Amino acid sequence: MSTLCLTLDEIYELTRSTMLANGCDEANAAALADIIMRAERDGSHSHGLFRVPGYVKSLRSGKVDGKAKPTVVKKTRALIHVDGGGCFAPLAQAVGLPVLAEAAAEIGVAALSLTNIHHFAALWPETEFLADHGLVGIACTAYMPMVAPAGSTEKLFGTNPISFAWPRPGKPPVCYDMATASMALGDVQIAAREGKTVPLGTGLDAEGKETTDPAKIAAGVLLPFGGYKGSAIALMVELLAAGLTGENFSFEAAENDNHDGGPPRGGEIVIALSPALIAGEGWNAHAEAFMERLTSLEGVRVPGARRHANRMDTGSRTINKSLIETIHGLS
Amino acid sequence: MSTLCLTLDEIYELTRSTMLANGCDEANAAALADIIMRAERDGSHSHGLFRVPGYVKSLRSGKVDGKAKPTVVKKTRALIHVDGGGCFAPLAQAVGLPVLAEAAAEIGVAALSLTNIHHFAALWPETEFLADHGLVGIACTAYMPMVAPAGSTEKLFGTNPISFAWPRPGKPPVCYDMATASMALGDVQIAAREGKTVPLGTGLDAEGKETTDPAKIAAGVLLPFGGYKGSAIALMVELLAAGLTGENFSFEAAENDNHDGGPPRGGEIVIALSPALIAGEGWNAHAEAFMERLTSLEGVRVPGARRHANRMDTGSRTINKSLIETIHGLS
Repeated sequence: MSTLCLTLDEIYELTRSTMLANGCDEANAAALADIIMRAERDGSHSHGLFRVPGYVKSLRSGKVDGKAKPTVVKKTRALIHVDGGGCFAPLAQAVGLPVLAEAAAEIGVAALSLTNIHHFAALWPETEFLADHGLVGIACTAYMPMVAPAGSTEKLFGTNPISFAWPRPGKPPVCYDMATASMALGDVQIAAREGKTVPLGTGLDAEGKETTDPAKIAAGVLLPFGGYKGSAIALMVELLAAGLTGENFSFEAAENDNHDGGPPRGGEIVIALSPALIAGEGWNAHAEAFMERLTSLEGVRVPGARRHANRMDTGSRTINKSLIETIHGLS
Repeated sequence: MSTLCLTLDEIYELTRSTMLANGCDEANAAALADIIMRAERDGSHSHGLFRVPGYVKSLRSGKVDGKAKPTVVKKTRALIHVDGGGCFAPLAQAVGLPVLAEAAAEIGVAALSLTNIHHFAALWPETEFLADHGLVGIACTAYMPMVAPAGSTEKLFGTNPISFAWPRPGKPPVCYDMATASMALGDVQIAAREGKTVPLGTGLDAEGKETTDPAKIAAGVLLPFGGYKGSAIALMVELLAAGLTGENFSFEAAENDNHDGGPPRGGEIVIALSPALIAGEGWNAHAEAFMERLTSLEGVRVPGARRHANRMDTGSRTINKSLIETIHGLS
């Protein structure tokens, strides 16, 4: 695979200029460029530049409004709602998250529902934002149906990621962001592009049979991680991201989408909780005693640690050359 | 296995009188009897009468105060805290859950932290209570270390159950309650008692090797469900139930416990969210369209459905005779 080296600024600028060239205003382009740069910076390639062609498709088809101005409403002292107006998720989050953090710091728990957005990115930026403000963060979103509930061979759930962050003042937070599918769709797509196989149990082919071929799974169904227990978590994500926000369930997202290859319209829920208000003084020292135990165990990796280690490297990143050429061709 | 038939009232009265005979006051005995009767009624045997000897041990050792009077404080309009004063969890929940439900119905999201309680029961009664009030419920508790984080062979996590309920007005809610261990400790204990084997992957023996012998796993470590993703969910439960409440982490519960065989002191977090306030009018019809899709899939079971089906049978229940004799011997 032929590669090119891009600095983080170059990744940001490439994304920003591509978005501006395809109808985004400055605010939307900057929010998206920031999220893409951070994904590449942290090594989350499946949410980085790999997504740009999809973002552009949804701008060109008119599905996403690159000039949308998200509006934020505080429905109660603990409930914040952002109507994205058809924007990409990052701008809606940039508008809503500070209001959510302020509410949770004041009242101890708060929820942010986002509707009329198009989410095609990782979820850790949302929960990590909260952790950076001393708050616990939980975020969920749904997507197009790709995953069969446990026991079934028919897709109904999205890959339905859940992200969780625990604040560690002065240290990188505990922070994970994982598909409740056995594998993220982006990673299945990358495996297919690179001609690799995936573990048995990742998904079923179009006939409902197990396969290790990612291309066949992309044309069939993914399975939830962890059997019926993982399926229960995927169900929770679907109900929180769609039922609780009043936005599209995954099956509705597919029915209402124009199938341009970009992200469908959907919802997201973000919950923030304050350990300082709930546990009170000393909460951090108490939690750190646990973290010390956890990190002392051989073979255990703190979720988010690899991403934070990648982040320490401020140098350039190695990107698939044909992907860069594809993106240049979009301006 | 020799069995006896007991009516639901007899199960309630047997538990109540056993608790009264071992130092509980009327309020504590009634709350516990209710939770045990409901577990047997719904077929959750590992949380029913099977637990009574353990409850009694912790009363006799003085670890649990059977006359404790839990106190409830509203710290903010969205945060409720119950100090159990060393009681069994059910009485503390009975005091706190109505206040939580009222707060969530008013402000849209609220959290209940319970500390200084001894939790030895299922978690679905908490979340189902919220669903019966039209609210989404999420509950987590930690326990003694029994589960090795993914990648490790040393136990650190409790079996760390998570319960989730989605309200379906006029219908039984979606409601699950599952250990984030591959199997609940109670079920491993029952399998050991009944001389059964458990699936490979359930846990490791004292030497860190895989085994199908539940007795060896009880003396070794359980594994999380679903590999590193399930381990991430178990970690979230540990941080929410202990870090966020300021109560014992599982490893602290073990260190601080008198090892009388009864439930250790611990914490619990319960989060309630209002779909009526967050999604607004029409939330139920919207979610039911999804539930219709889900239930139409061949091979899919709605979480909680089996428990609710069992509940429809108001007749007597078949109980292990030696267990009944053991319980009679405790009065």
